[in-house]
Amino acid sequence: MRSYRLALIGFGNVGQGFAQILRDQGPELVRQFEIDLKIVAVSDPLKGSAYDPEGFAPAALLDAVQAGRSLETLTATSHGWDAERTIASCNADAIIELSYTDLKTGEPAASHIRQALERGMHAVTTNKGPIALHYPELSALAHRKGVQIGIEGTVMSGTPTLRLGVDLLGAAGISRVQGIVNGTTNYILTQMESGAPYTEALAEAQAQGYAEADPTSDVEGFDAAGKTVILANVLMGTAITMKDVDRQGITQLTPADIASAKAEGQRWKLIASVEKTTDGVKASVRPTRLLLTHPLASVSGPTNAVTFTTALLGDVTMIGPGAGRLVTGYAILCDLLAIARSTPAGH
Amino acid sequence: MRSYRLALIGFGNVGQGFAQILRDQGPELVRQFEIDLKIVAVSDPLKGSAYDPEGFAPAALLDAVQAGRSLETLTATSHGWDAERTIASCNADAIIELSYTDLKTGEPAASHIRQALERGMHAVTTNKGPIALHYPELSALAHRKGVQIGIEGTVMSGTPTLRLGVDLLGAAGISRVQGIVNGTTNYILTQMESGAPYTEALAEAQAQGYAEADPTSDVEGFDAAGKTVILANVLMGTAITMKDVDRQGITQLTPADIASAKAEGQRWKLIASVEKTTDGVKASVRPTRLLLTHPLASVSGPTNAVTFTTALLGDVTMIGPGAGRLVTGYAILCDLLAIARSTPAGH
Repeated sequence: MRSYRLALIGFGNVGQGFAQILRDQGPELVRQFEIDLKIVAVSDPLKGSAYDPEGFAPAALLDAVQAGRSLETLTATSHGWDAERTIASCNADAIIELSYTDLKTGEPAASHIRQALERGMHAVTTNKGPIALHYPELSALAHRKGVQIGIEGTVMSGTPTLRLGVDLLGAAGISRVQGIVNGTTNYILTQMESGAPYTEALAEAQAQGYAEADPTSDVEGFDAAGKTVILANVLMGTAITMKDVDRQGITQLTPADIASAKAEGQRWKLIASVEKTTDGVKASVRPTRLLLTHPLASVSGPTNAVTFTTALLGDVTMIGPGAGRLVTGYAILCDLLAIARSTPAGH
Repeated sequence: MRSYRLALIGFGNVGQGFAQILRDQGPELVRQFEIDLKIVAVSDPLKGSAYDPEGFAPAALLDAVQAGRSLETLTATSHGWDAERTIASCNADAIIELSYTDLKTGEPAASHIRQALERGMHAVTTNKGPIALHYPELSALAHRKGVQIGIEGTVMSGTPTLRLGVDLLGAAGISRVQGIVNGTTNYILTQMESGAPYTEALAEAQAQGYAEADPTSDVEGFDAAGKTVILANVLMGTAITMKDVDRQGITQLTPADIASAKAEGQRWKLIASVEKTTDGVKASVRPTRLLLTHPLASVSGPTNAVTFTTALLGDVTMIGPGAGRLVTGYAILCDLLAIARSTPAGH
């Protein structure tokens, strides 16, 4: 049996999804994977902080939030602990970094992760900001400290793209990765193919909760570009930045563009691509016409997918969900199980 | 650095593909994965046997076979060692079992694997016979002996289906697995959709080398049924047998069937399926009409694919090659890397 004391930095949708999985599957995880995951600390700027070295029942955390009670009501101590104080004082084996995403600075998440790694804690995050901006540095720091950094949830949420690429296809010689890694734009493009003009499709995506009030990050390709950087740096060992991604969004696509592709048996998709070339790794995000026979062409709505082109296997494609409370919570579990698998028992 | 001395039992297409990967990528594997794989023994009933505790250069093994020379010319000792003698005498860390496939008895492969596990060696195989028939027993034996059994190549060749299911989706609650796991029949069905009647499509598959002279194992669904048993027993922890698979091949499909599906926006695929039900796990192989929007519907020709239906992620689909010399050789490498990852350094 391996035991991990966890500190959750942030307790929004994803943190609650993860707690829900532990609440519902905890005993099964112990039985099937011989892993005991205990939440000993939570720190959220809105929902309050709580620390108990014995661990919280996930249901207690969820019930408090559900009832609109501060997490501070769960313990007599640790009131007002911010993220930094929590990481410094909670003696966890791993932090789960789930604060908000900032693709310009990666903060405050990057500082939280750095602090945890420096203290010899594993760090798991589903937050693409710090990873798109600082992965090479954070990864090297983790290596130096003999701990691991789990980032599965940063690209396709709980669909285990990065571990598939690193652990299972890493020796097959990946020369190119192409993917549909933004569900919002894929949903909009699917709507446009049914005849809706861009503005109408966007409004529908907003009504469905797929697009935010300010859709810029999605429709201009910034979200996909961040994921593209992660794919390149994790799977190809480069250290590219957001500026290295040749980025174009979907806002210029017209119904005429859609119709013209359709007439030629093709379909527009916003394709994120990283490719090894003799000039180094080339990265781009741009609307691309795919033949209907292309494995990514039939990926519709909010679904995500990625195709790995490899020397030994040719193309391998994975298709799965790219968002969701439980889906993203699962990414955290997937990382923790992988950390446990690669750590000798008793450590 | 982890070092593994390997004994190859069988040196046909797959063994040679694996040796070719080691020849071409050996130094890169050392650099990137800190793993040193050394072939210390090969035993093949046709190509001869060779044993050298210092290990062979993979190129030397390949060159001998290429030139039609017996492997026995490579060493002065170990002449005539059969599989059993090789496993008993070679002091390898792992055997790679690659003898021919027998779906009725699983022999002689099952005995080779049993012998190796009993001696505390890891066993890796791409041979579905022993695994379809004896996985629960062999897996328990490996567990008792503290070694591992690697079977990635037994279902979709080098496309890492089983490790995706076990390692990366194992905690997501897999309730159903559906797949196209036989490339021969999928190729024939793709040809039939273009208008060829069954006999003509089969002849074309034979001409292309996708189908054997006696195509029974493929077209009657036995090959797919063996893989279905493996999917069920590995991913759902059952112990079903070939007899538990409700099996139907593609030989009864007519051009009229194909046309009628097409007229309704559907497509026939030979679908292998395992599903958890309240009555236990139900397993089947049968021609199935899929809507064109189904992720398996667009998988054409010799390509394979599998869709995992899970509680936490919904559907996750992987599409990739299902056969090939280097592709299947890669499955062995994938297993060895996974064994190394889960073994503490120095062991």
